[in-house]
Amino acid sequence: MSHVTAPLSGPLGGPLDGLLVVDFSRVLAGPFATMMLADLGARVIKVERPGTGDDSRSYGPFVAGESLYFARVNRGKESVVLDLGDEGDLELVRELVRRADVLVENFRPGVMARRGLGPEDCLALNPDLVYCSISGFGHSGPWSQRPAYDAVVQGMSGIMAITGAEDGPPVKPGSPVADLSAGLYAFGGILAALRGGRGTHLDVAMYDATVSLLEGAALAWLVTGEEPPRMGNAHYTIAPFDTFPCADREITVCAANDMLFGALCSALGLPGLLSDPRFASNALRHDHRDELKAEISAVLRTANATHWLAVLEAAGVPSGPIASVEEAVGSEQSRARRMVVDAGGLPVPGQPVKLSAWEDPATRPAAPGLDEHGEAVRKELRERLSPGG
Amino acid sequence: MSHVTAPLSGPLGGPLDGLLVVDFSRVLAGPFATMMLADLGARVIKVERPGTGDDSRSYGPFVAGESLYFARVNRGKESVVLDLGDEGDLELVRELVRRADVLVENFRPGVMARRGLGPEDCLALNPDLVYCSISGFGHSGPWSQRPAYDAVVQGMSGIMAITGAEDGPPVKPGSPVADLSAGLYAFGGILAALRGGRGTHLDVAMYDATVSLLEGAALAWLVTGEEPPRMGNAHYTIAPFDTFPCADREITVCAANDMLFGALCSALGLPGLLSDPRFASNALRHDHRDELKAEISAVLRTANATHWLAVLEAAGVPSGPIASVEEAVGSEQSRARRMVVDAGGLPVPGQPVKLSAWEDPATRPAAPGLDEHGEAVRKELRERLSPGG
Repeated sequence: MSHVTAPLSGPLGGPLDGLLVVDFSRVLAGPFATMMLADLGARVIKVERPGTGDDSRSYGPFVAGESLYFARVNRGKESVVLDLGDEGDLELVRELVRRADVLVENFRPGVMARRGLGPEDCLALNPDLVYCSISGFGHSGPWSQRPAYDAVVQGMSGIMAITGAEDGPPVKPGSPVADLSAGLYAFGGILAALRGGRGTHLDVAMYDATVSLLEGAALAWLVTGEEPPRMGNAHYTIAPFDTFPCADREITVCAANDMLFGALCSALGLPGLLSDPRFASNALRHDHRDELKAEISAVLRTANATHWLAVLEAAGVPSGPIASVEEAVGSEQSRARRMVVDAGGLPVPGQPVKLSAWEDPATRPAAPGLDEHGEAVRKELRERLSPGG
Repeated sequence: MSHVTAPLSGPLGGPLDGLLVVDFSRVLAGPFATMMLADLGARVIKVERPGTGDDSRSYGPFVAGESLYFARVNRGKESVVLDLGDEGDLELVRELVRRADVLVENFRPGVMARRGLGPEDCLALNPDLVYCSISGFGHSGPWSQRPAYDAVVQGMSGIMAITGAEDGPPVKPGSPVADLSAGLYAFGGILAALRGGRGTHLDVAMYDATVSLLEGAALAWLVTGEEPPRMGNAHYTIAPFDTFPCADREITVCAANDMLFGALCSALGLPGLLSDPRFASNALRHDHRDELKAEISAVLRTANATHWLAVLEAAGVPSGPIASVEEAVGSEQSRARRMVVDAGGLPVPGQPVKLSAWEDPATRPAAPGLDEHGEAVRKELRERLSPGG
């Protein structure tokens, strides 16, 4: 590993201190992966195209003219503008590649190679490099060249087919899980490859990542060859394990075994359900889950969620409200866990890797302005290119 | 690092060769994290309780009496039954902890400490250990002791609030994203901590992990303090970027900028939309997205999805079918990318970390029977405990 000697921005301190990442990625999946690396102490140099830079600089919402979208995933990175069509700039890019431990890009497969910066090119420049590509469908297979956005991949991955009411249409999870899961696999895969100690091309596909999340539905299809139904908020094999209406709002109630079902029936004053042959085992409860839901709902509708959640908590039955975004992001638990941090004065989501041996600071460096670190990075690279100059 | 000398099962070969993981985790989030470690070459020793072992051994679907659920996330691991209430077994557990690089557990916070196996206990035994806890709400904060299942955490994290039709109820994403995202953060976080080279307690909460996925909705709330609406399958800021009905089924169409919108209008024979003042910019298209959707849908409904997807592909407009689980998991792309592999004769989902320097085998070792490796692991540990014996 040949690191750039003097980090330009103060490192946060973290387990990845000393790691140098050159980041050609844009928008979400790639920047999310390198955000995790930066949050944990890596130096991330973001190479942006002249003019507009990363497209997501223009994505809302905005605070005082700054994109919070961009600020969230690019906090703590350095920005340098380099023109991959300019031979002088390409010389600096190649020097950066020689020094880096990790390269991340999320262009369509082939784009980096056409610029002389494909995996083979870069591994020739730096045989120890971990070269991470994130793309819609991967660098192999018949769909490799298909254009992709998160929504296209979600649709094709089957995750929409299993989301929504049993008698309703497929629904897209409200979060860009194709982008984010690909980013998380890249985050872990990069660190696995680094540990392996060999230069390599890590090829993460949003499609693979999202297909890997299908879980029970994929297993059901693999076993039976039959398309699994949408289940609404219910569980494939467990009941009662669903959302239920209280007088004012819905809650989740999960009684995954006989003991919890007993506790639930006692807590709701429904001891008769325990001797009802329709509900004598989990399998029977699942077969009769609509009738069971009606029995439970009739009781829950008699009081507000606050009341029932206290009753269920006292009874040890896993349960919780269907929280709004405000209740979730703004909760006392989110605050205690630093799941909102300050990045250069902007409130942005924190990160979930909490390590006792390193700080998880409440304040993160701001995302960079376009080319904010350009002069310093270019100087640093030129000095190394012509050490006598 | 003090590895057990002779791996009992043939290692797959991968970047994590030589890594020893002791795994107390059960069901999904923890086993999913250690599945990734095992798939990439680590030796994972799964410690199970006497009698029934991991609860998920009894979860469907089943193939010839074997749980595919268990087989998927536990392939390639070794199983040893040890009774954490038995002092003789605890001595073996402590020896395992001394030798391991990584420990993973997903009990409720405090359970491992009450058995003398909390983070402090284990870091005292092995100061270089990465001790990874995965829990519903984390080891700190006021909600730390709340019981949690994936569905409870999904409800409380806000992800259900942003999933579903604008005028419909909250919907749970059909995949256990709280479990799986926590597992992915644990996978990356463990490897980051290992690189940091210090013993540490990694404390991953399913709640933190799921809150971190809210993305645009969280940002919108952080900026405005107003609850973001559910958007159905539409995008918060871009249009047209949604699902649309063809004659036979729905497809996703994403025209994220003026150029793609132009290409879309040409491809659909709707040049009039380009001069329509309601659709003159992305912001205007988003404001008038219902009218725009009606215009586009009227054309798409005249032919089947296969026709329109070919037309849109030729025009370079990102688009795709809303695939069924069968179409997704069984696709030619999934096959080409080995997203279904054979684990001891059972078909199970593959993994998305594809590395050019290591094989991604089409065949994985089976998940272990309960205590399948118990005799050998106990012998190995006893020999080390009493080297003269």
